[in-house]
Amino acid sequence: MAKITHVSPLAPKAGFPSLPVIDGVRFAALEAGVRYSGRTDLMLADLCEGTTVAGVFTRSSTRSAAVLDCEQKIGLDLDGRAAILVNSGNSNAFTGKSGFDAVAKITGALAEETGVDAQRIFTSSTGVIGEPIKWERITAKIGELNAALDADGMELAARAIMTTDTFPKGATQTVSLDGAEVKIAGFAKGSGMIAPDMATMLAYIFTDAAISRDVLQQCLWLANAKTFNCVTVDGDTSTSDTVLLAATGKAEMAPITEFSDPRVEAFRTALHAVMKDLAIQIARDGEGATKLIEVQVTGANANGPAHRVAKAIANSPLVKTAVAGEDPNWGRIVMAVGKSGERAERDRLTIWFGDILVAEKGWVSPSYTEEAGAAYMKNDEILIRVDLGLDDGAATVWTCDLTHGYITINADYRS
Amino acid sequence: MAKITHVSPLAPKAGFPSLPVIDGVRFAALEAGVRYSGRTDLMLADLCEGTTVAGVFTRSSTRSAAVLDCEQKIGLDLDGRAAILVNSGNSNAFTGKSGFDAVAKITGALAEETGVDAQRIFTSSTGVIGEPIKWERITAKIGELNAALDADGMELAARAIMTTDTFPKGATQTVSLDGAEVKIAGFAKGSGMIAPDMATMLAYIFTDAAISRDVLQQCLWLANAKTFNCVTVDGDTSTSDTVLLAATGKAEMAPITEFSDPRVEAFRTALHAVMKDLAIQIARDGEGATKLIEVQVTGANANGPAHRVAKAIANSPLVKTAVAGEDPNWGRIVMAVGKSGERAERDRLTIWFGDILVAEKGWVSPSYTEEAGAAYMKNDEILIRVDLGLDDGAATVWTCDLTHGYITINADYRS
Repeated sequence: MAKITHVSPLAPKAGFPSLPVIDGVRFAALEAGVRYSGRTDLMLADLCEGTTVAGVFTRSSTRSAAVLDCEQKIGLDLDGRAAILVNSGNSNAFTGKSGFDAVAKITGALAEETGVDAQRIFTSSTGVIGEPIKWERITAKIGELNAALDADGMELAARAIMTTDTFPKGATQTVSLDGAEVKIAGFAKGSGMIAPDMATMLAYIFTDAAISRDVLQQCLWLANAKTFNCVTVDGDTSTSDTVLLAATGKAEMAPITEFSDPRVEAFRTALHAVMKDLAIQIARDGEGATKLIEVQVTGANANGPAHRVAKAIANSPLVKTAVAGEDPNWGRIVMAVGKSGERAERDRLTIWFGDILVAEKGWVSPSYTEEAGAAYMKNDEILIRVDLGLDDGAATVWTCDLTHGYITINADYRS
Repeated sequence: MAKITHVSPLAPKAGFPSLPVIDGVRFAALEAGVRYSGRTDLMLADLCEGTTVAGVFTRSSTRSAAVLDCEQKIGLDLDGRAAILVNSGNSNAFTGKSGFDAVAKITGALAEETGVDAQRIFTSSTGVIGEPIKWERITAKIGELNAALDADGMELAARAIMTTDTFPKGATQTVSLDGAEVKIAGFAKGSGMIAPDMATMLAYIFTDAAISRDVLQQCLWLANAKTFNCVTVDGDTSTSDTVLLAATGKAEMAPITEFSDPRVEAFRTALHAVMKDLAIQIARDGEGATKLIEVQVTGANANGPAHRVAKAIANSPLVKTAVAGEDPNWGRIVMAVGKSGERAERDRLTIWFGDILVAEKGWVSPSYTEEAGAAYMKNDEILIRVDLGLDDGAATVWTCDLTHGYITINADYRS
């Protein structure tokens, strides 16, 4: 692991949030020594009977054995107890047949210890690619892990899945569904190799809502498209990206079984807020980040093109280094719009830094001054707004600047 | 301009090559002070009557006024004298209507001074985006420039178009066409904002071959697809990429007027060699580069997918920083193949560093040792070979590593 000697300057000032107990979920974390030493690297979430589980995963064609295993299980219509087991230090990706064997050994050992059906055990692995995972270090700890389960252990779990992260990431919301106070809480990791093509990184979200698997999956998919899928650190997509959402059904509510249920909208809003919070924390902890960048694109001919233009800006090394240098170099934003491959007309483009109108009608705005732009760029959080002036397609993407810190971390760290 | 305090360690050891005089072409360069001071920033190439001119340009939707002007002129069937005028320091891109006015002022002044039809005057501008170009500094120098024309001035011209380049880039070939010794020579600039989607950067190539405009254009297009289009430094596509190829027809040969002419193949081979040489020099001068990286992809289901997989590897910040750190981190190559969006099957992938077999059959090769990989990564020139094992699609892409130097240059320089 890279030596993380300081916490990202963009870390939430309040530290890790106080997360509520989610009735029906217990956590444990410990040191298994998969690769790291002197820190926790293995976490277990135990999910009560009746929990529905939804998931979205990387679309990488070289995705890991754990991801392939989860994908196969996520659609099964089972509702007994369930579990999520995650290790950091080794991603078990590109490890051939032995990678699948390792997943089977781990899930088999956990099933034996806990009595949970192996088809309801979801695993993730994050860390170095292409090295055989020392699965026996994980299976050796399963008894101890199971004995340590605690409803109040979510922060410990969040810490155990970190790799180059400089702070653990948690978020929570409560939502009233027909009088029932439903809780949603979760955590995520992610710092580099962040450019999810659908899911991103590892994130685990828990709720006591009673909600069927199909509806839960649809809520997750929709929220994911506007949250984790809208974060990029370096344009590199991981082999292991996984988001799991588990609903224990312990809240005092009649189960939601249809997407048309009027309570779904409130649930989705709260779920979206939790996932957006976690997604932005990932951008805040982007490797080497010193600035959080939000890119808002409006006026595209559809939402898809808006998203691709926003990604082209957010992934441009020249835009990201300009922000790092506090240089209001809006010409590089024009360049990135131009290279996106999406329709854009120079004379309809409008660009703002925050509320500062920078360029319009194919030209720098008469009201813009370099001084105003330079002063704005000194902020920790930079908003880049681009209106394409074509139609009402819109998208927002979050990223961070590209600094010497990114180079130092990645010329040094095997991930 | 960034303070370029040292020449790229990857610059050709022999320095700028000795370029031949191309009969029918003369060059001049001088200091116009468009933005820089204490260096040349304006160059003129004067082309004799009968010269055919071919061009390829950036496909950016925000391409510059000069590019739009060239595109409109390049297809015209005119054969009088011609000229190419290039300034560095300001790209005249995203400068609204005044950008077009500036091009008209510059080409008009040059037409008046030289008698060349303005429709045969091709201009390029490179440098900062979005600032009005001080065209009057250029027009003020046109008389002096025209008076300085010299058949032997190609190196001076190459130096005048540099921006963050650390060395001027030239290349030459001769080819015998039915006994006529035809010369091809040219020069290029480019160092950052390099990810041509068709043309790249600025390159100007001259030949005394007698060859019709249509055939010349086709030769250029084909060579470009395998040379400049296969270079990337940072995945960012310029608003100004331009390649112009001018054939004066002064060689003692019957004109080539059909692409089926048997002499075309020899001409294409020599042209390809010049353009590949220049393209690789651009990668060698990539901003902050310490390693030249060649990515060869074979076994794809077609050449297009092979090119996109090669680009995904060559543009991956994680691959590029691993090379910078001399880390044989082949897992990041697996990641980049996976994220490319192209078809790949984990168990058919084979990866080599140079001649060292690294991974095959979904797993690290039994013969591979970390020591051998680490020793290989100490080379200045790194060959990454990936075979997808699907069909016979192939592509080669050149790039460089991603270092602190790139960050320093781009957090500091307005381009």
